Amino acid sequence: MDPLKVIYHVRCDAESIAERAGAIAVEQSVEMPLAAIDDATVLSDIVGKVEAIEQKAPGLFEVRIALATATVGRDAGQLINMLFGNTSIHDEVTLQDVELPSDLVKHFGGPRHGLRELRQRAGAGSRALTCSALKPQGLSAEKLADLARRFAQGGIDYIKDDHGLADQAYSPFAARVEAIGAALRAAGRPNGPPARYVPSLSGDLDAMRTQIAAAQRAGVDTVMAAPMIMGFSNFHTLVREHPGVAFFAHPTMAGAARIAPPLLIGKLFRLLGADAVVFPNHGGRFGYSSETCRHLAQTALHEWDGLRPTVPVPAGGMTPERVPEMLDFYGPDIMLLIGGGLLAARKRLTAETAAFVAAVENYRYGLKP
Amino acid sequence: MDPLKVIYHVRCDAESIAERAGAIAVEQSVEMPLAAIDDATVLSDIVGKVEAIEQKAPGLFEVRIALATATVGRDAGQLINMLFGNTSIHDEVTLQDVELPSDLVKHFGGPRHGLRELRQRAGAGSRALTCSALKPQGLSAEKLADLARRFAQGGIDYIKDDHGLADQAYSPFAARVEAIGAALRAAGRPNGPPARYVPSLSGDLDAMRTQIAAAQRAGVDTVMAAPMIMGFSNFHTLVREHPGVAFFAHPTMAGAARIAPPLLIGKLFRLLGADAVVFPNHGGRFGYSSETCRHLAQTALHEWDGLRPTVPVPAGGMTPERVPEMLDFYGPDIMLLIGGGLLAARKRLTAETAAFVAAVENYRYGLKP
Repeated sequence: MDPLKVIYHVRCDAESIAERAGAIAVEQSVEMPLAAIDDATVLSDIVGKVEAIEQKAPGLFEVRIALATATVGRDAGQLINMLFGNTSIHDEVTLQDVELPSDLVKHFGGPRHGLRELRQRAGAGSRALTCSALKPQGLSAEKLADLARRFAQGGIDYIKDDHGLADQAYSPFAARVEAIGAALRAAGRPNGPPARYVPSLSGDLDAMRTQIAAAQRAGVDTVMAAPMIMGFSNFHTLVREHPGVAFFAHPTMAGAARIAPPLLIGKLFRLLGADAVVFPNHGGRFGYSSETCRHLAQTALHEWDGLRPTVPVPAGGMTPERVPEMLDFYGPDIMLLIGGGLLAARKRLTAETAAFVAAVENYRYGLKP
Repeated sequence: MDPLKVIYHVRCDAESIAERAGAIAVEQSVEMPLAAIDDATVLSDIVGKVEAIEQKAPGLFEVRIALATATVGRDAGQLINMLFGNTSIHDEVTLQDVELPSDLVKHFGGPRHGLRELRQRAGAGSRALTCSALKPQGLSAEKLADLARRFAQGGIDYIKDDHGLADQAYSPFAARVEAIGAALRAAGRPNGPPARYVPSLSGDLDAMRTQIAAAQRAGVDTVMAAPMIMGFSNFHTLVREHPGVAFFAHPTMAGAARIAPPLLIGKLFRLLGADAVVFPNHGGRFGYSSETCRHLAQTALHEWDGLRPTVPVPAGGMTPERVPEMLDFYGPDIMLLIGGGLLAARKRLTAETAAFVAAVENYRYGLKP
């Protein structure tokens, strides 16, 4: 099979970069002195190879390394281990991008639903999708269900858990999906089919399977999970085991900040099967630049060996006022997620939600005031 | 229950630090504007509280935040999510330390074996333990078993897989544990009971369970796993489910480099039940300082609510020449891991291994030349 091509950015002086690049190729493959390797096949087929070194700026180099696909096997955890494992401990290296052989892309398979299906489920035509978040944690399932009902009456497409909601005593997962699932079916929605609840999974792989089963019994077919907390392999296993369920990926613990966000969130989370990827939008509570966000969204959507596009979900301190600017910036292939910015309306929650929804539904591109 | 006390280091100017600290307390608890919270219990019991702010250097502050233990519940993944989840995405914040209520420490339980039992299994008395690594990947199970046999004949206590060894076609996990387990039983060891093989787990939680079962059938009772790749919850589940198995934690993907290594590797991996924690020693291939390494080892060993100590395993480009210096630096409560530095001896592998083992067994503290 063709090798993986891995792109690192390395801060290094010009005299040392060739040696440094070679050391990365060894660290991410055989992890031992080449002089100590007898086996001819290992030397020719397994040891990583530096294919190119390009200066991007003074003291900053782009290094392109070919790694044997056989070292990954078919496991998603081993994929991230071979891409960045030990090298992640080196401060001066960023994992910037990867090119995977088509066979491996097909094996992981990407989103089972993705942009088109999430739009269809919401009856959203070709417009941007809308989303809000249930919080604060500490509320009971009933209080969260009341919030969900009011979001739905305002016309929101998807209503996700805050990623802090797990299986805590004050709002156990099973009670939550039951209460919120029922509330959303009863509430209906003024502008389409009932709003979709997106509960947040937590615990080990078995706990998450139990949670998905409880969600499905409550009529819920969309869930959220955090690949960086549960592990790539376990995320991919859940996706494979539940073809009817759509998966949102949450970026919590993506603070392995030296993986370029467009790669980690836009590309790798998509590869594993995330149908929508939540990420911190520029100008919100987090420091991603507008360039990073644009690149991330493009990576989530662009053609990639026939994978479905995953829905970019810019979030993190967004407000209804920013809707036109965000739609201009991203276009309609997106889900707009506003949580605290709507919850701040308190008693006027449904009305503020309806205004947000109307702003998205009625937006005309290129017709800004 | 008492709250968690979480310590962050924040790069920030003096005028803004109070506001920034408050924002972290909100981000890691309710993640929404406080003005939008109606619920009195949430405001009093769930919202994080800034307890102290101390300037450590110009532009660098230590912030101490109390988080409600109820938000963690009993889940290890949720623990790291609440400690650092979204805040990990902020470049200017490092997760520095955490103080946990005793009940929570007892729930997670720490090492089931730890330093004392790993010494007993190896018949190592009170000296430092020794370890080497099987690599390069790409070798067949038989060739790896031959390496293991030669390490054992040299007297090594523990022989671990390179963390790149997973379940690849060239050396499937089941074939590997069978070949290496048998080789080590047959080889015996000149200085004690047979050497212990420590195979590396990979894949999802189920795959790892299957691998542990295969290891146990092959007479293997020690395994290695990477908490940052498999996820905290799944690591903790394996520890709970296999009380007879000792666990080495590998630091791969610990490049969420803004978690202080003594906390992540010395404290949190120990909390979850790692019996030994591998980490990059100063002066090797990675950039940890000697101060970081000393602090990490102390954290792994110090008294902590009755938890067993976990074995510090400094590694990453170590050589037999460094044995006296490392023993002086760390003392005997340690496992010395030399992989490539022994494999480089090629045909003289057993003899070099024996010299390494003798250097550790015969070392007298404070009697350096």
